Amino acid sequence: MATMHPVTEADSQQHFEARLHDLGRRRYHIHHPFHRLMASGDLDAEQIRNWVANRFYYQISIPRKDAALLANCPDRDTRRVWIQRILDQDGSGDDGGGIEAWLRLGEACGLGREELRAQRRVLPGVRFAVDAYSHFVRDSEWHEGICASLTELFAPAIHRQRLENWPRDYPWIESAGLDYFRRRASQAGREAEQGLAVTLEWFNTPERQERALQILQFKLDVLWSMLDAMYLAYVLDMPPYFNEAQVP
Amino acid sequence: MATMHPVTEADSQQHFEARLHDLGRRRYHIHHPFHRLMASGDLDAEQIRNWVANRFYYQISIPRKDAALLANCPDRDTRRVWIQRILDQDGSGDDGGGIEAWLRLGEACGLGREELRAQRRVLPGVRFAVDAYSHFVRDSEWHEGICASLTELFAPAIHRQRLENWPRDYPWIESAGLDYFRRRASQAGREAEQGLAVTLEWFNTPERQERALQILQFKLDVLWSMLDAMYLAYVLDMPPYFNEAQVP
Repeated sequence: MATMHPVTEADSQQHFEARLHDLGRRRYHIHHPFHRLMASGDLDAEQIRNWVANRFYYQISIPRKDAALLANCPDRDTRRVWIQRILDQDGSGDDGGGIEAWLRLGEACGLGREELRAQRRVLPGVRFAVDAYSHFVRDSEWHEGICASLTELFAPAIHRQRLENWPRDYPWIESAGLDYFRRRASQAGREAEQGLAVTLEWFNTPERQERALQILQFKLDVLWSMLDAMYLAYVLDMPPYFNEAQVP
Repeated sequence: MATMHPVTEADSQQHFEARLHDLGRRRYHIHHPFHRLMASGDLDAEQIRNWVANRFYYQISIPRKDAALLANCPDRDTRRVWIQRILDQDGSGDDGGGIEAWLRLGEACGLGREELRAQRRVLPGVRFAVDAYSHFVRDSEWHEGICASLTELFAPAIHRQRLENWPRDYPWIESAGLDYFRRRASQAGREAEQGLAVTLEWFNTPERQERALQILQFKLDVLWSMLDAMYLAYVLDMPPYFNEAQVP
């Protein structure tokens, strides 16, 4: 939880926005050891595949999370904008959508669609973190759900980093497989600006601003926890019940 | 997920019970490296305190989880029995209850009640795992919620282990602080027998029996994930954002 400090009036939008940006700058999962290994070309093929398979669970939860937000939202103007996120992930018309792009990333890495969809590789710790986000949005007031999406402000940098180093460090992955990162490198930033505008306007009291920082911290915790589970399992070779064979 | 295998008829209750026991025998968190360090006297005082503080979040979620189960249960006879669990944890009459006993465990370890209640030490990974259990019971049919409690079948052994080694290995912890383990060493077993009886009767088709094993596996995942988060944070010194100081 962000520390509560006694204030008499809300921060200016500018200062509040700076606080949100600072929190993400310091704690976005771009700094997680697992991601740092990815960015320095130090993950092997199986570790990459396991990351793709675990992230898939996050991907498929997003349109449902956004549908839950729509369900909680009585504001038709907001719904008209927010529904685009569901269309972007599930696809519409000729656009296969983000989930389709992730399935192609899987194929480019040597993971079949059926394997990804069966979720066989999804770690419990990843599932619990992703579900925490889904449940939060389902159970929260819709402005809070929008605020929780603001890690997208920091996503373009991580996608651009991957677009830069994967072709060099993981040349065995076909370039077309990286289309998801290409989509999100710009899309995430545009969507985040919408979410930010709503957040800056709604969270306009000291208490609400502290709440917004708590919510962003929670979402940063979700992303960091996902990588914690993957680090323990795939870098430290301690997946769940790794020592089961020694049980008498 | 437990592997689905084609079967034409349900296992006998005896065989089904044996499968449940075998799953727990192999995967109960008594085998987790964090717990093995605890059992061999190799945790330091701060690690013990952090475990107590994180487990507290699990403790306080239990009566609410059981209330959610009651809310889903239209069977008055079951509710008359199951409500005892809420009374046991929250306390009633002269019995302070399990949560009170855990607060006293905290005090015996040098953790103040206010600190435990403030949940300052609760790791995100622990919170997400515990909340996954709470949400499961809230969102599931009540027999499934009861089935998820069956890790209690394996709990007496772990409480008895602690009662045996803590006085020897952690003599700085006052004996009265271990009352929670004393309560649960017998209580958990009795409660588990009730849950087991319901489970053996209700899960009486091949599909339902596979489902019960999936549910037990899920609950084992919850407990193991909690210790994964604690191991990473307190044994490997990699709590969330441990490297934040190096962010430019």
